[in-house]
Amino acid sequence: MSQPPLLLALDLTGTFAFGLNGALTAVRMVRLDLVGVLTLGMMTALGGGILRDILIGSLPPATFSDVIYLGVAAGGALVAFFISVELERFTKLITLFDAAGLAVFCVTGASKALVYGLGPVQAVLLGALTAVGGGTLRDIAIKRVPNVLTSDFYAVPALVGAALTVLAVRLEVYGVTVALLTAAVVFAIRMLGVRYSLHVPSTPRREEPEE
Amino acid sequence: MSQPPLLLALDLTGTFAFGLNGALTAVRMVRLDLVGVLTLGMMTALGGGILRDILIGSLPPATFSDVIYLGVAAGGALVAFFISVELERFTKLITLFDAAGLAVFCVTGASKALVYGLGPVQAVLLGALTAVGGGTLRDIAIKRVPNVLTSDFYAVPALVGAALTVLAVRLEVYGVTVALLTAAVVFAIRMLGVRYSLHVPSTPRREEPEE
Amino acid sequence: MSQPPLLLALDLTGTFAFGLNGALTAVRMVRLDLVGVLTLGMMTALGGGILRDILIGSLPPATFSDVIYLGVAAGGALVAFFISVELERFTKLITLFDAAGLAVFCVTGASKALVYGLGPVQAVLLGALTAVGGGTLRDIAIKRVPNVLTSDFYAVPALVGAALTVLAVRLEVYGVTVALLTAAVVFAIRMLGVRYSLHVPSTPRREEPEE
Repeated sequence: MSQPPLLLALDLTGTFAFGLNGALTAVRMVRLDLVGVLTLGMMTALGGGILRDILIGSLPPATFSDVIYLGVAAGGALVAFFISVELERFTKLITLFDAAGLAVFCVTGASKALVYGLGPVQAVLLGALTAVGGGTLRDIAIKRVPNVLTSDFYAVPALVGAALTVLAVRLEVYGVTVALLTAAVVFAIRMLGVRYSLHVPSTPRREEPEE
Repeated sequence: MSQPPLLLALDLTGTFAFGLNGALTAVRMVRLDLVGVLTLGMMTALGGGILRDILIGSLPPATFSDVIYLGVAAGGALVAFFISVELERFTKLITLFDAAGLAVFCVTGASKALVYGLGPVQAVLLGALTAVGGGTLRDIAIKRVPNVLTSDFYAVPALVGAALTVLAVRLEVYGVTVALLTAAVVFAIRMLGVRYSLHVPSTPRREEPEE
Repeated sequence: MSQPPLLLALDLTGTFAFGLNGALTAVRMVRLDLVGVLTLGMMTALGGGILRDILIGSLPPATFSDVIYLGVAAGGALVAFFISVELERFTKLITLFDAAGLAVFCVTGASKALVYGLGPVQAVLLGALTAVGGGTLRDIAIKRVPNVLTSDFYAVPALVGAALTVLAVRLEVYGVTVALLTAAVVFAIRMLGVRYSLHVPSTPRREEPEE
């Protein structure tokens, strides 16, 4: 993937952010050893792109093939391992980083799907999957109902970003500037969602079944 | 996949049924927002076919590429979102729809695996996977031990239907009529299983580990 | 895969061991019917290789295509189904079998990744994935936080074995003898880990969140 340097830099920032954030979220839920923290951090950072690449048949997956992505994701997870004790101090920063990853990945994910010849609807879904897939895999691995399924305003900005990207490609205005602008919009929507606790309509509350 | 119209109609009915049923089952277990209901409904409806297509290397997966399947699956999930409050009224209907989906998917799944050159044993397994894979993915996502693993008479009709399909292809009598007959047999076995609470032999009961 | 007979024999032994062990572990946690035991046993035995083959784009996956592997995995699971009552008697034997599977799979997994042109880092990760992936899928399916993520000394021997294999291939000394030696080293590390309860450093203990 010979991306423009700016997009590559953003993509790597997103990867680092997801590696860090993914590992921290995991550590908050389960006691993990170093291998577990690395595994979950890398799964969060690379999982969305890997799922997308499996679905478009681009194997081996790009981020898995590229040792730089592996290293950056592992670096994020390692930082998480060492700061996990004092993690409460960093909550805000982590949310920012995570929103940055979300913003970049939905744009690059959707545009890659189009490059591989998928239709616009599929490209929107794959863009969102690239952004939320890694965190979902992590949540499943640590026995947590994936955030994205419940009431967090998380999938919506990713879907919006992917849709804007598809639109831009169709209008033949897609490029580094538009990609950055789109990512900025996604970032803003996500942070507004966090700030004002926006929610998507939910099904009425039921009492938890005993199963 | 240029299927005969009748099989296509059945396949889409199965997809709608699984989208509806998958979303309803999810809503019964966890509180979900609209995005979550759509995700889980589509995952249930399309997941089995996507897993099969990954394993046979037919990427991008057929049902994912085809926007009609995406739309029908999403439609089923949307209906589920709006009727979820009064869902108890529809339990019987949902079981019927679900059995229809199971019946169609094991037949079309097994026959596609044979078309892609897999052996008979693999085709039987892939037929069953097509039928039960989506529901299994959904169950894992909502932290429920997949039904198919415990004591429901659910995988058996799918395995029987897939085996009959492989047999029919081998005997060179496979066609729309035979496919429909096979699906009818699977449907009948499944409904008998529900009616008479049939079970596969289980391991002896143990007390739940506290973990 | 035309492997040398000795490696094939080992690989099948590992498959049987994982089928048996995977099914027994599942039965210890959840009550399963015969279909569930077979599914989880085969998932444990074949899942790691299937994940590896998906990631390297070798589809359909080798162990899934080969009916001998399917049969051996199912055989292990069947044995588990019938001895599950008296399983406590076999705990030691099962640990030995499982260590054998781990030892073989990390070596054959890493060497296959290199054959398919992946880089050394990726081959190490894929070797370890081949060894621990099946058990991880099983744990997720039965709602258990995967062992490999918490504090078991399980991933480390697999990573060591995969790394030694990559090294041996690079030094052009890889062959049946070296493969067996490497597997023996992995086996020894794993059994020492079990014997002396070795652990990888963990994050500090927290109280369980109520979620």
